[in-house]
Amino acid sequence: MGFRTGYFRPESGAPPPLRAVARRRVRFEEVDSLGMVWHGRYVSYLEDGRHALGERYGLSYRMFEKHGIAAPVVQMQIDYRAPLRYDDSLVIEAVLHWCDALRLNCEYFIEKNTGNGAELVATAATVQLITDISGELMLCETDFLMDFRKRWRSGALHE
Amino acid sequence: MGFRTGYFRPESGAPPPLRAVARRRVRFEEVDSLGMVWHGRYVSYLEDGRHALGERYGLSYRMFEKHGIAAPVVQMQIDYRAPLRYDDSLVIEAVLHWCDALRLNCEYFIEKNTGNGAELVATAATVQLITDISGELMLCETDFLMDFRKRWRSGALHE
Amino acid sequence: MGFRTGYFRPESGAPPPLRAVARRRVRFEEVDSLGMVWHGRYVSYLEDGRHALGERYGLSYRMFEKHGIAAPVVQMQIDYRAPLRYDDSLVIEAVLHWCDALRLNCEYFIEKNTGNGAELVATAATVQLITDISGELMLCETDFLMDFRKRWRSGALHE
Amino acid sequence: MGFRTGYFRPESGAPPPLRAVARRRVRFEEVDSLGMVWHGRYVSYLEDGRHALGERYGLSYRMFEKHGIAAPVVQMQIDYRAPLRYDDSLVIEAVLHWCDALRLNCEYFIEKNTGNGAELVATAATVQLITDISGELMLCETDFLMDFRKRWRSGALHE
Repeated sequence: MGFRTGYFRPESGAPPPLRAVARRRVRFEEVDSLGMVWHGRYVSYLEDGRHALGERYGLSYRMFEKHGIAAPVVQMQIDYRAPLRYDDSLVIEAVLHWCDALRLNCEYFIEKNTGNGAELVATAATVQLITDISGELMLCETDFLMDFRKRWRSGALHE
Repeated sequence: MGFRTGYFRPESGAPPPLRAVARRRVRFEEVDSLGMVWHGRYVSYLEDGRHALGERYGLSYRMFEKHGIAAPVVQMQIDYRAPLRYDDSLVIEAVLHWCDALRLNCEYFIEKNTGNGAELVATAATVQLITDISGELMLCETDFLMDFRKRWRSGALHE
Repeated sequence: MGFRTGYFRPESGAPPPLRAVARRRVRFEEVDSLGMVWHGRYVSYLEDGRHALGERYGLSYRMFEKHGIAAPVVQMQIDYRAPLRYDDSLVIEAVLHWCDALRLNCEYFIEKNTGNGAELVATAATVQLITDISGELMLCETDFLMDFRKRWRSGALHE
Repeated sequence: MGFRTGYFRPESGAPPPLRAVARRRVRFEEVDSLGMVWHGRYVSYLEDGRHALGERYGLSYRMFEKHGIAAPVVQMQIDYRAPLRYDDSLVIEAVLHWCDALRLNCEYFIEKNTGNGAELVATAATVQLITDISGELMLCETDFLMDFRKRWRSGALHE
């Protein structure tokens, strides 16, 4: 494995990715005995980024639930570049990349406020599949997702 | 990104990997509102596997601390193949692969007991670098690690 | 507030309490930057004790679910007496006290293995009410609980 | 045990308590398989309230660390009144009560935004002792705490 930032290969003819930002401060309980945020806590940071995306573009858990679908994470990769410490201020950018197949490809950039700028401390990626409520994989698009993707393609989501 | 099981390319002339196993049952608090283990909890499962390796081969946090070194995770990848549910019995196998560079390359296989056998539900990999206590990267081996690697190479750890 | 160990007043004519034990070791991720287990992690230790009770006496989440009931915690108190450190071996004893009202009164004793004995490091108590699946409080006993309490009263559970 | 809101008896001649507020939304990962926030997650909510107090009045972990002291929680009680669900908006008020002895007595009120008002969903209390960095109890006040308490008593902190 090697450090990566472009986790997903751009598909030809794909519309521009969707972006959203979440902010957060490192909690005492997230820091380990070496004084650094334990690597497992970053999963919650990614969740915050994905939540911001969902809020902004109508892809939240609530919407999924309302339309009888779920989007389990089937793959996650995190690359840690610099340690985080107690009370650090974080900016988490989540970027949803278009995928012709029915899945959500999300990339993350976690930056730490250094007082006079920002430092990239971690990058990450998750892949989510779409299932119905019982966990069965959905291969065709539901109306809800079809509509969402149509609006994304048309540029309506970027305004 | 695509599903993988061989996360690390074998180095030529490398001694066989080291293996250890941890067991665990899914706790109520690890399950989300969809009735499945939330993907972020698996990081703790990996930690249990790595702890088992450390116990078996003398690579525990205690040993690291005693010798003034730390081994922060700089990369993690998890591939989720099948959901886990409350009270599932898990077997977590951790496999440490030889690396000529000063890092710990660990691969994981999480299996669920299905009553009449085992099902592979997730695979994963982590990369750890070696630093001193202040977090500075170590490029040369300490006596402790040099001795560990010598015993690994000689086959003494496999008996 | 003052340190307590007898959290529940014994009811007259009550059958002896039910007891079960869980074992666990402190994980790296449970320890904070002061080198001690963060106080919030103990809730999971209590959960392990309660799970052991459930397994032993047929009061598990699975049984609750099967019978269409839930047992949300409505009150929790934890008294911390001595710090816990990485890799400490714990014994968690959970004690269910009889209550004429329809609730589960549970007391906990967490001990740490000191090498040549055990040290009491925390005591705790939880109160759970019984609701149906939608969260509505149940005031009358279901057959499942009525049967459980009859067996408790008769001494059948203590053998 | 019975439901309480006045966890601490007011000491005669004590200055008014200090108050601070934190805001937060329920994360997906905090909700259990019954669709409610798992009771153990509330400890993090209390931590946010205490953090807000620390920020406002100069009692943060950073200040403690700078002055070579720690304030471990030795007692915690939480009373759960109504369930919390995914994405609920919370207001956490933390109230520090004066205590002649060298300890921090903190009370918490967690409210949920209901759209047209607020509903009290939980109350809680924690007691913290003051120790030096090695964990030894401090019985005399350090300059830092003596100064803090003098300003509290004089009313300077309430402006």
